[in-house]
Amino acid sequence: MRYDTGRVTDAADDEVAREEPLEIRVRGRPVSITMRTPGHDAELAAGFLLSEGIIRCGPDVLKVAACERNDEGNLLNVQLDPLVPVDFEKLTRHVFASSSCGLCGKASIDAVRGQFPRIQSELLVRAEMILAMPGQMARAQATFTRTGGLHAAALFTAEGKLLVLREDVGRHNAVDKVVGHALLKRLLPLNRHVLLVSGRTSFEILQKALAAQVAVVAAVSAPSSLAVEFAQEAGQTLIGFLRGERMNVYSHPERIDCKGD
Amino acid sequence: MRYDTGRVTDAADDEVAREEPLEIRVRGRPVSITMRTPGHDAELAAGFLLSEGIIRCGPDVLKVAACERNDEGNLLNVQLDPLVPVDFEKLTRHVFASSSCGLCGKASIDAVRGQFPRIQSELLVRAEMILAMPGQMARAQATFTRTGGLHAAALFTAEGKLLVLREDVGRHNAVDKVVGHALLKRLLPLNRHVLLVSGRTSFEILQKALAAQVAVVAAVSAPSSLAVEFAQEAGQTLIGFLRGERMNVYSHPERIDCKGD
Repeated sequence: MRYDTGRVTDAADDEVAREEPLEIRVRGRPVSITMRTPGHDAELAAGFLLSEGIIRCGPDVLKVAACERNDEGNLLNVQLDPLVPVDFEKLTRHVFASSSCGLCGKASIDAVRGQFPRIQSELLVRAEMILAMPGQMARAQATFTRTGGLHAAALFTAEGKLLVLREDVGRHNAVDKVVGHALLKRLLPLNRHVLLVSGRTSFEILQKALAAQVAVVAAVSAPSSLAVEFAQEAGQTLIGFLRGERMNVYSHPERIDCKGD
Repeated sequence: MRYDTGRVTDAADDEVAREEPLEIRVRGRPVSITMRTPGHDAELAAGFLLSEGIIRCGPDVLKVAACERNDEGNLLNVQLDPLVPVDFEKLTRHVFASSSCGLCGKASIDAVRGQFPRIQSELLVRAEMILAMPGQMARAQATFTRTGGLHAAALFTAEGKLLVLREDVGRHNAVDKVVGHALLKRLLPLNRHVLLVSGRTSFEILQKALAAQVAVVAAVSAPSSLAVEFAQEAGQTLIGFLRGERMNVYSHPERIDCKGD
């Protein structure tokens, strides 16, 4: 039902974002179960395996297919090149587990940095180009979203062209789908691209961006302390509170051209 | 740096929400690592173990203490009553893993429902009381938040009194802290209470609420499809888009008194 200023109406037409479990299997073994919005599941699986450090590039993935015995399409088999080594033990642990100094944000960053190279990019993006991105993303979302319950992630070229937009009930999933799309389309590394997310940025979002070598990560909302530290260390430009004519740049501002035309 | 309408200023004073890893140990074994905002870690651990079905009530927890050897305070030992059985195998899997029918939302709901009783509550809350809750939460947040990067969860009595408010970079953590607080304060079951979350509601949020037997879950933003199905099945009243004078009620509206004074 809908309640509005004391008046109660029926709300049977309310649309909500879909959420269903997805199990990702590699070489027949389950490596992840996540709640996600169905659609672009192969991209989600590819992006997940990239950010876990299992695969590095498109050719590592031979085929992604739903298990035939599951009618719901919620079981996905990822067929990897037989030469790709898979450390199943590591996949079920978290990468930021521990270090000799104990458990802390710094150790977590070091653990991820040991897996992926630091960003090398001469990219220079005009500030106006970045300011225009949230509007572009919102317009692209408007064409197919009416539920208000989805996180979005989008990939842009340095010239401000939107390459791909994905939505999901989970914000990590939205990023996995975008990054997985880029991997499957052979667009990696993304060191000439900008990743825009609709919400906040955290350690994990930056980790996923680094796995794909994204040079600039922008968000409509705030970053966490660890996201900022991560970006500084990994050579990523991190932008937050990207709204209207404003943005905060938390790391590597040298990639933003603020001079105007 | 801060960019505003072409003007660049320094932004060294920008505050961001803290994010650090936390490892939760039970009987000396790590059972979870999560990125969280430090503070109220004992509550977070208690809430997590409650929603995983390991503990049921306050007396199950004898003591929660930081490991002495970790200076950062990011390792937490939870000392349980020796009579509490702990299935370590199950703790490292996800509860919504699988069922005979395959992997689907329905099976995930059934798996959780098998762990916790359906809500039994004669609670009746006045609609105006619920409409006032987001404002109360915002005012309580304003007193100690300046970062804009935090999710919030709050527990209210049926009379609209705010009992506890917690914030975290992770929305599941904010709910775990609130629920863990209630457990440690011996307030369970919460079948005469309202849980309010600042963001969206998903399967996992409803799972945590059910573990604490929360009768009414309200959110400022949208629910997912699985959150709605879960709430219907588990007997929870689920409210979304709680803003201004409006709200949508997705399940069990009989607990909302819309008649006014």
